Amino acid sequence: MNSALSAMGRRTAPPPISWLMHAALSRPRLISLAAGFTDNATLPVKISRTVLNRVLRSPKTGQPALQYGSTAGESNLRKLTARHLQKLDQSSSSLERRPRTRTKNEDDKTHSWGRVMITGGSQQLLYMTIEALCDEGDIVLVEDPTYFVFLSVLQSHGLRARGVRLERDGLDLAHLETVLQRLKKSGELHRVKALYLISYFHNPTGVTTSFEKKRGILKLFKQFERAAGHPIYLIEDAAYRELRFNGPDIPSTLMEPDAAERVIYTGTYSKPFATGVRVGFGHLPEPLFTTVLRIKGNHDFGTANLLQQLLADALETGLYDRHVARIEKRYARKAQVMKQVLAEHFPSNVEIWEASGGLYFWARLPKHVSTGVKSKVFQTALKNDVLYVPGQICYADDSSRKKPDHEMRLSFGSASEADIREGIKRLGKVMLKLL
Amino acid sequence: MNSALSAMGRRTAPPPISWLMHAALSRPRLISLAAGFTDNATLPVKISRTVLNRVLRSPKTGQPALQYGSTAGESNLRKLTARHLQKLDQSSSSLERRPRTRTKNEDDKTHSWGRVMITGGSQQLLYMTIEALCDEGDIVLVEDPTYFVFLSVLQSHGLRARGVRLERDGLDLAHLETVLQRLKKSGELHRVKALYLISYFHNPTGVTTSFEKKRGILKLFKQFERAAGHPIYLIEDAAYRELRFNGPDIPSTLMEPDAAERVIYTGTYSKPFATGVRVGFGHLPEPLFTTVLRIKGNHDFGTANLLQQLLADALETGLYDRHVARIEKRYARKAQVMKQVLAEHFPSNVEIWEASGGLYFWARLPKHVSTGVKSKVFQTALKNDVLYVPGQICYADDSSRKKPDHEMRLSFGSASEADIREGIKRLGKVMLKLL
Repeated sequence: MNSALSAMGRRTAPPPISWLMHAALSRPRLISLAAGFTDNATLPVKISRTVLNRVLRSPKTGQPALQYGSTAGESNLRKLTARHLQKLDQSSSSLERRPRTRTKNEDDKTHSWGRVMITGGSQQLLYMTIEALCDEGDIVLVEDPTYFVFLSVLQSHGLRARGVRLERDGLDLAHLETVLQRLKKSGELHRVKALYLISYFHNPTGVTTSFEKKRGILKLFKQFERAAGHPIYLIEDAAYRELRFNGPDIPSTLMEPDAAERVIYTGTYSKPFATGVRVGFGHLPEPLFTTVLRIKGNHDFGTANLLQQLLADALETGLYDRHVARIEKRYARKAQVMKQVLAEHFPSNVEIWEASGGLYFWARLPKHVSTGVKSKVFQTALKNDVLYVPGQICYADDSSRKKPDHEMRLSFGSASEADIREGIKRLGKVMLKLL
Repeated sequence: MNSALSAMGRRTAPPPISWLMHAALSRPRLISLAAGFTDNATLPVKISRTVLNRVLRSPKTGQPALQYGSTAGESNLRKLTARHLQKLDQSSSSLERRPRTRTKNEDDKTHSWGRVMITGGSQQLLYMTIEALCDEGDIVLVEDPTYFVFLSVLQSHGLRARGVRLERDGLDLAHLETVLQRLKKSGELHRVKALYLISYFHNPTGVTTSFEKKRGILKLFKQFERAAGHPIYLIEDAAYRELRFNGPDIPSTLMEPDAAERVIYTGTYSKPFATGVRVGFGHLPEPLFTTVLRIKGNHDFGTANLLQQLLADALETGLYDRHVARIEKRYARKAQVMKQVLAEHFPSNVEIWEASGGLYFWARLPKHVSTGVKSKVFQTALKNDVLYVPGQICYADDSSRKKPDHEMRLSFGSASEADIREGIKRLGKVMLKLL
C-alpha cells in the first residue's frame, strides 16, 4: 500500500539543523556556538512575573488574557506595535537624514495599526506570506546565504530559491539586477513573487543592508514589475533589529515613500524579549493583509492572548525598552569577547565578518577548506566538543552557482563568556592543525 | 497589473463567522448565542497567577519557560499529556467494558508520549494534518454538518468535502458505506484521505459518536483501504471531550486494537482550561507524526514554552483537574437553563438536540423555514438583539445533496444565565411570530 501523504508531506525535508541539535544532546560537555538561542541569563524572568501578576490581577485584563481574541491580534498590542515601529523608524531616519520627511497622512499609512498583525513568532508570518503569494514552482529571491528555516519553508512548498550575492554592506544590487535580467530573458520573471531580505544583523552573516540599498532594491523591482505582470514584494525580516549594540539604527523600507505597498515588514518580540514568548508581528500591504489574515484564521484564529497581554503591558510600562537596553549591553560585551578570542586563536587566513548586532559572527575559511558536517574541520571540532553551523546549510539549492562550503556561523547568543573563549580556542586549534 | 497572490491566496474565503462577529460588535446590547467562547467567569485567573508565579520563581522552570524549546513540545508536557489521555481512556473503557483489555505493550504504543505533539491549539494540528495528507482536489469526509473553520481549511487548500449524515448517536455508518461505495464506483476512492470526526459533543450539534460506531468506521476503512491504495485516516477531534457534564465518558479510538496506526487524535487544553492559552495536542501514527513535525518546524518550530509550562504545572499539581470539575458543574447548570427556557419559549415543531457536554444545543426548525443570514428569522432576531449561528454555514459544499438551511447552533458557552433566558425568550418570540 502507498503512503497517503500529500506532495508537500512527501517533499518536506527534515530540518538541516536537527542533526546538529541531536549531536549537541548526545555530548553533554559540548560547547555550542551553533544555537540561535538567546542568552538564558538575559531572560526577563522577574519582569515577566511582575507583568503577569499585574495583567492577571486587573479586572480589565485578567479575564481577556485567558479568553479568545481576534485573529489579527489584540488591538491594544497592534497599536503599541505600530507606535513601536514608528518610533524605531523615526529616530533612525532622523539620524540617517535620508528618507524624505513624511506628512501626517503618510505616517498614518506606513505605520498604521490597521495593517499590523500579531502572529505566533515572525516565523508564522513568513510561512503564511509564502502561502499567500506562492504556487509550486514560483521563485523567491533570497540572500546568498540566508536563514535556513526560510529555505525549508520554500522547499516544503515546492518553490525555487534564487540566491543574490551579499556584500559587507548588504545585498549586491548589481547582482540582483543581473538575476532579474536573466529571469526575464528565460521567461521566468512572472514566477518571481518576492525577495526575502534579513535587513538587520542578518542570519547567518551579521550583515546589515543600508537604507540606500533597500531603496535600490525597491527601485529595481519597480522597473521589473511590468515585465513580471504583478508586484514583486520585498519581505523585510527585521527579527534582529532590536539586538543592536553598535552604530545607529537604520530606517526600515516602510519609510520609503509609497514603498509600504510593496513591503511586508516582519518583526518579533521573541528575540529581544523572550524566545519562550512566541509573539511576532508584521506590517502588510493590501491585498496581502486581508489574505494572510484569512489564512491565519485557518491556522489558529489568533495568537494566545496571554502572551499578547504580557507584551502589551511590558511595552506600555517601559519594562520592554529597559530590558532591551540591558540585553544590548550584554550582547555587546559577548560580541567583544568573541572578537578578541577570534583574533587571538583563529588563523589569519580566516576572514571574520564582525557583527554590530544580532547573535552571529561569520567566518570564511580559504575556499578549498570544507566546513560541512562530513568535513574534517567539523568532525574534529565535534570530537573536541565544540559545535558551529556549517555555512553550506544556509545556501539555497540554486544550480546557477556552486554552493559555498567553506564558512561557519558562530553564535555568541546562548554561550557564556567563558564558553565563547573556550569554544573559539578549541576551534582555532582545530583549524591551525588542519589548514 | 495582476495580483501576485497564489492560488491559495486567491481561493481562501473570508471566514463565514466574520460577518456574525461584525454584527455582534456593532450592537452593544446584543445577546450572542453564537460565539464559541467559553464562559469568562470560569476562566482560571487565580490558578494561572498561582501557577505562573511558581513556574517563574523556580530555577528549574523559570528560564526554560522563557526560552525556545523543541518543535514537538516540552517532553514533560508531552508525557503528562500521554498520561492524561491514558487516564481518560482507561476510566472510560472500564465503564464501557467494550474495548478489549490491552496488554502493557499495547498501552505503550497507543498512549506513547513519543507520538504526542504539542501545538498552537488543536486548530494548528488540524491544519498541518491536512497539509501533510492532502493535495488539491483530494477528498475529506466530514460529518454533515461539521465545524465550519475546518471547512474553511479544506476550501483554502482546494479540497473537496463530502458530507456523511449524522444521527443522534453519531455518524450514520450505512451512509458512510454508501458514500465510500459511490466514490469507489466513480473512481475517486484514491482521492479520499481521511474522515474528520468531532467525536465528543460535536460542534455544532452536540452529538457524541458511540465507541461502537467509531469501531465501525475503522472497520469500514479497512475494507476500502485496498481499493483506495493507501490508508484512510480517522481524524478524531476530541476538542470538547472534557467539557462533559452528563453521562459517562467514551473511550477514544486509540483504544481500539491496532487503530492507533490509522487514528490522528487531536485534543486541546484551551477549551477546558483557558482559550487565551492556546495549547493543543495530538497523538499521531507514523509516517504522519514525523511529517507533521517537520511541517511544524516550518510553521513556528514549537509552541510558546511559557504556555506549555503553565499547563504542565497545572496538570502535575491537580489544579487542572480541579478546574475542569468546577467548570463542568457550571456548564451543566447553564445547559439545564437553556433546556428549560427552550422548552418554555420555542415552538413545539422545533426539534431540539440537547447536549450532555460541550457548548452547543442544536435546533431544527421545520424544513421550509430558512435560518440563514438573509432569512426573516435571522434578521428579525438580529433586530431584537439576539444572535445565533445559522446551521447552513456548518455544511460542506457537497453537490450530492441540498444544503440544509433550517437549523441553528445555540451556544450556552459565553452567555450568562440571565442572557441565556432572555436570548432564548427573544428567539422564541421571533419564531412564534414567523412560523
